Order: sequence, then structure tokens, then C-alpha cells
Amino acid sequence: MTRLSIIGLGPGNPDQLTPEAQNALAEATDLVGYGPYVSRVQAPAHVVRHQSDNRVELDRARHALEMAMQGRRVAVVSGGDAGVFGMASAVFEAIENGPPEWRGLDIHVVPGISAVLAAAARIGAPLGGDFCVMSLSDNLKPWEVVCRRLRLAAQAGFVIALYNPRSKARPWQLGEALAVLRDVLPLDIPVAFARAIGRTDERVLLATLETADPEQVDMSTLVLVGCPLTRRIMRDDGSAWLYTFRKVPQ
Amino acid sequence: MTRLSIIGLGPGNPDQLTPEAQNALAEATDLVGYGPYVSRVQAPAHVVRHQSDNRVELDRARHALEMAMQGRRVAVVSGGDAGVFGMASAVFEAIENGPPEWRGLDIHVVPGISAVLAAAARIGAPLGGDFCVMSLSDNLKPWEVVCRRLRLAAQAGFVIALYNPRSKARPWQLGEALAVLRDVLPLDIPVAFARAIGRTDERVLLATLETADPEQVDMSTLVLVGCPLTRRIMRDDGSAWLYTFRKVPQ
Repeated sequence: MTRLSIIGLGPGNPDQLTPEAQNALAEATDLVGYGPYVSRVQAPAHVVRHQSDNRVELDRARHALEMAMQGRRVAVVSGGDAGVFGMASAVFEAIENGPPEWRGLDIHVVPGISAVLAAAARIGAPLGGDFCVMSLSDNLKPWEVVCRRLRLAAQAGFVIALYNPRSKARPWQLGEALAVLRDVLPLDIPVAFARAIGRTDERVLLATLETADPEQVDMSTLVLVGCPLTRRIMRDDGSAWLYTFRKVPQ
Repeated sequence: MTRLSIIGLGPGNPDQLTPEAQNALAEATDLVGYGPYVSRVQAPAHVVRHQSDNRVELDRARHALEMAMQGRRVAVVSGGDAGVFGMASAVFEAIENGPPEWRGLDIHVVPGISAVLAAAARIGAPLGGDFCVMSLSDNLKPWEVVCRRLRLAAQAGFVIALYNPRSKARPWQLGEALAVLRDVLPLDIPVAFARAIGRTDERVLLATLETADPEQVDMSTLVLVGCPLTRRIMRDDGSAWLYTFRKVPQ
């Protein structure tokens, strides 16, 4: 059966790429994805790299499906996990709206270590209880929906992981999001900014909901906002771990 | 520095264990964890396996920390990702309440492919939008909190992943949880039961919020409840993919 793979490359550290993903990449004749992720893959010279910018997911998905139908071994790649704000959903959207024969393809989605899991591990155990994962970008949803979801997530007591917290086009969103959360949550709740985890330039900043400064965040940062049960353990060297206490009171 | 590793083993398929986790396991003199996870690790005969049952996380964490302080190379293991309803949070809770010298340990948390990521990849791209991850167990939180969180998550429009949906001691919880969700969400929303994904006995059942039958679920099942944007793509062989449409309307 003609196959297309959708592969999560993990956060960037090659040690966090699974053997399953490595094997699927090794079979590919064509790599499709956002430029920096396609560039990251080590592949023989005969493998064709189809790089595109970050706003054309559906075109990119259709192109990958067309090539797969022609018998190419196509690997669509995303950073982290392809199912979490990556390419997987765009590929299935293209299939749903494409020619019926695309539904005959063998689609192999290969999970990867997502940014939220890598960031949490680097910080301690902040996801120790129930949590949610949201994108702050308003490219695909109205900003009012983002704010409403933030408020409900905080009311639920979820730890909140925020992808795409900031870009040049929308430098104001994280500040507004933190303001929404400050309306609901105690101001001393821990907040972590985890930038480029698993890469050589990784950096973690810890703050609280009161002191968190959006100016310290860029598009490569994952923001983790704790819940009322998230605690900070101070260490002698001035660093700290965050973890979320498992037992929830009545 | 004396080190303790907390390692996510992934869903069970060895191809989904990262090289980082494999390397950390290879250094261990002692493996600590719930019996089935400790048994899963391939290790030389001299490695000591400390297996315990599933209800004694804190005792297990303290034991691991004591051994690490004695200079043993201890690996605490969990299935999936250790930070997602695994051992990581228990280890940090033990540190916070333990002797100050435990804070001097080098704690290395190694992320793993969590059950929710593996199940989502197997099914298609159901996590294509914002989502939340909850445990249905009331061992660590009151059932009223679980129900309240489910209601808020559904109102937020999150896709909802449910860990620990059912056990012998609480066969009724998933039925009540689905009833809560039916109060808020359209009845035709897709629901997936993903059992033992990545293992040889894996099984996926697709239903809707109306037809989902808790009797088909056991403790090894991850339950995924879609949101109003989650769609089913039918295939000629009778199987289907689920994916969540990325664009959220006003």
C-alpha cells in the first residue's frame, strides 16, 4: 500500500528522536515541512527536501499527498509531536477535502516528544496533575476564544501550557493572556518560560503570575503556568524545581 | 554529583523508547517502579529491580532517593512519560518533604512518548487543536472536582484525554463522566477508546458521545473525547481516522 509518514522529530536533541521516527525517516525519498525542521533531518543526498515557510500547511499537505500517490516515499515532518500544533491535522484536513483515492493511502503518524513534555521534564514535574495545552496564536482561532479558554482552564485548576506565545506580528498577546489568568488565579502561582529546550541555546526562566514579563518570551518559548497546587523547591545553588502536588483538596 | 534519573519508557513498543532514555537506563544500578514497568526494562543481571505495586508512589520515591544518596545509580521508571500521571511528581514531593541534602541531588527527568500522544497518532490527528489531559481516578482528587473539570473542559472546547478511566474498584466513573459531557457537548462528537497502544494487544474502538459504552474500557485504555471540531474520515475498508479541524469559528 502506498504510504505517507507524518513524523514528530522531538524538541531538537537527536537523543530525543525515537527509533520509530528514525526508521520512518530512513525510508523516505522526500521530506516535506517547515524549513528548519526539514533542515534538521540527517538524510542521504538523494533525498529531496521540500521546504516551505510556516503559513502554508494545507498546500504543503496536498503536495505531500500528491507525491505519495505517485509512489514517492514521503515523510512530512514537524518539530516535537506532529499531532500537537504540527502537520498531522493539516494532512487529514487535506485528505477529507481531497480526491477519494487519498483515503486509500496508508498514513503512518509517528509520535514524538512534544515541546510541553520536554519543557516539563527540564523544569521538574509541573504536569503532575490535570493539564491543558493551548496555542496562543490567533491565526486559526479568534482571540476571544483564546481568552475564554484561558479563563475556563484556570477555573478548572489545570496547569496550562502555552504554545506560540508571541510573534513579531502579535507581541501583545501573552501580556493579555497573563492578565486574564491574573483575574482568576492567585498571583504567586509559578510560571516558567522554557526556551528551545533540548537545543544548545536552551534557557529556562522561572517567575510567578505576578512577575512574569512577556518581554522575556519569543516564538521558541513554551510558557507553563502552574495551578494552585504547583510548588517551587528552592536549591542551594539558587536554582529551583517546579512540581505539581498530586493530591487535590475538596 | 549524585544523580537520580526519572525515565519515561513510552507506551511499550521498544521503538518508541528514546535514545536518551535508553542511555539513562544503561547507566542504572537500580531500577525502581511499578512492577510491570520495571519488568519491561532490558538490563544486565547485576542491575537490581525494586518492584512495587501501584499505590505506593511516595514510599517508592523515598526509597529511590535514599539509594541515590548512598551512591547507587537509580533509575525510577514509568510507562509513557513520567511527568504525566507517572512517578516524577511523587519524587519531587518526597524531596520537598525530605532531608535538605536530597535537594543537592542531580535529578534528571527524561521525557517519554506519553500514552495520549501514542493513542492520538494511532487514530489520526485528534489533538489538532487545544486539548486537556485528565485522570479520572479519584484516588488523589474528589470526584466532584473531576466532574467540575470535565464540564469546564467541555465548555472550553478542548479535546479531552482521559487516563485511568476505569478500575475494578470504580467501574462507574467513566459512565458518569460521559453523562457530564453529554450535558454540554453535541452527542455526535467522536469518542475513541485506545487500548494498549504500542503493545501487541493494541485495540482501537471508535464511537460517539452517544454510543460510547464504558463496558468496553479497562484500566489500560486511554479515552479520547473529541470537541465540536473533531471529524471522522471514513475509509473504504470500514476503518476511520479522527482529526480535529484547526480553524475555530467565532
